[in-house]
Amino acid sequence: MTSIKVKNILAIGATALGAFYLGTYTERRQHNADEYCQRTFARLPGFPVFSTVSAAELIPASEVNLTARPSRIAEIMKYGFPGLDNVRSHSDYVLSYDRRNRVPHWVFEHLTAASVAKNDAVDRAKCDFRPDESIHPYFRAQNTDYRRSGYDRGHMAAAGNHRLHQKHCEDTFLLSNMAPQVGQGFNRDSWNSLEMYVRKLTQNHPNVYVCTGPLYLPHKEDDGKSYVKYEVIGANTVAVPTHFYKVIVAEAADKKLHMEAYVMPNQVISNDTPLKVFQVPPETVERAAGLLFFDKMNRQQLATINGKKV
Amino acid sequence: MTSIKVKNILAIGATALGAFYLGTYTERRQHNADEYCQRTFARLPGFPVFSTVSAAELIPASEVNLTARPSRIAEIMKYGFPGLDNVRSHSDYVLSYDRRNRVPHWVFEHLTAASVAKNDAVDRAKCDFRPDESIHPYFRAQNTDYRRSGYDRGHMAAAGNHRLHQKHCEDTFLLSNMAPQVGQGFNRDSWNSLEMYVRKLTQNHPNVYVCTGPLYLPHKEDDGKSYVKYEVIGANTVAVPTHFYKVIVAEAADKKLHMEAYVMPNQVISNDTPLKVFQVPPETVERAAGLLFFDKMNRQQLATINGKKV
Repeated sequence: MTSIKVKNILAIGATALGAFYLGTYTERRQHNADEYCQRTFARLPGFPVFSTVSAAELIPASEVNLTARPSRIAEIMKYGFPGLDNVRSHSDYVLSYDRRNRVPHWVFEHLTAASVAKNDAVDRAKCDFRPDESIHPYFRAQNTDYRRSGYDRGHMAAAGNHRLHQKHCEDTFLLSNMAPQVGQGFNRDSWNSLEMYVRKLTQNHPNVYVCTGPLYLPHKEDDGKSYVKYEVIGANTVAVPTHFYKVIVAEAADKKLHMEAYVMPNQVISNDTPLKVFQVPPETVERAAGLLFFDKMNRQQLATINGKKV
Repeated sequence: MTSIKVKNILAIGATALGAFYLGTYTERRQHNADEYCQRTFARLPGFPVFSTVSAAELIPASEVNLTARPSRIAEIMKYGFPGLDNVRSHSDYVLSYDRRNRVPHWVFEHLTAASVAKNDAVDRAKCDFRPDESIHPYFRAQNTDYRRSGYDRGHMAAAGNHRLHQKHCEDTFLLSNMAPQVGQGFNRDSWNSLEMYVRKLTQNHPNVYVCTGPLYLPHKEDDGKSYVKYEVIGANTVAVPTHFYKVIVAEAADKKLHMEAYVMPNQVISNDTPLKVFQVPPETVERAAGLLFFDKMNRQQLATINGKKV
């Protein structure tokens, strides 16, 4: 028994570390120019172990917290990785990239009252949507893919959740953090309401953790069979998800945890539809997404799921 | 420059090792019974480092080569992992599992004349299709999912490629190695011809490496937009891929490498259609699958792609 537990701990430790390397390994490609390879390695975020910053170097105060520090990543991922496919660590959020669909599998954020507070030093208008060069060119979404598609470049990690530093905000504008969303009536309305609701949770919960991502849900057709169907846009065939999810854990002052899960269709939703309508059991999202959320959470601490005592 | 190269090597080494742990980490789940967790860890294939077999123990000759030995896995994966999502190492093939679609992302095999030779000691009829208990129950395909679906449980790693031991053959019957395939006219015909063709390559190539998996290819509809559409079957919504691919590298006696790539639609294909018709540039498969094949191959050794000199 004990030896099995020790194995678990060792394996988990090795994997958590391994997650930082995943992108590096999978994006390497011998027949591409060495130049691409080295550029990628040099720029790849979340590469804490072989950092080029030694203890002997002075870090200017202005740069503190502007890169993906291991301690910050550990804070964000405190309750576990939902999956480990092509993980990228950014300055204030962590992402797993779906190379087949050119959108995230999931993004993970840790929100506090401070990180979502209005901050005049951070200007969203100065942030540019830009391709993520840490993703291999074959799988990299471009701005041209979205152009004239009729869809917004919808943030998965919301810009408004990262207001401590300009760099935090900028990192959310990488196209690897986007998925095509219906603009009017969804991204700019009901989905935005859900994002604001999550931020508001920080008012009475010191720590809010949220995992966000796309879903491709099946529907039944006249032949009685079930099908998954979704549009793909642009030369890089970026997938337009049928739905989006958010799974949230809010930690109250008494350390009790409150979990909520939402699934919203990627379509115009009437503004007077209450958010409650979109609540689903977290397990439903896990099965549909192929992910396990808040896996490392101590279930003893869990007080409510979707407002109901557990 | 040198320091970057050293980093690359270290990172790659760490990741290759890490791949063995991936499944373990992602399938762990605290709120499930400890019993499930420990059972999974104890049974998980491809767990070479913390093996319970010590050097002091005698291994009966009959059991040699019956588990996923690290040296065998290294042979199979000699030219690199196409991706690192939920990797499973079996006795004679390696698999990456797509938890969202409940089918493999890819399976990797290393074929030799010996491994595909007729062997009376191996009886395919004694092998049972069975659920893969190393996959979390939420994402595990069951025999009932396929029942009355109209689709075959189509092997990705073909049973006929693993004839050295009964155990090798049995391992290919895990449902994690299956995807729903049209039976008559595809799985039992044209796809089978492709599998036989790959085996035949071992007659004049000492080593044949083959990566096999599903694709979900878009098509254009009357509205001018592109869509991905595929059926899902059973209670666990197992995806029915629109196409399947094989990317092959055959190593000749002179060490020259010959690469071929095939994509076949998951539908009835006339038996008189030559295999050549289904050849595609390997890059096409990579872009569609979100994977990179034979990434560690020395491109200097590559003599032909789809029969054409490079």
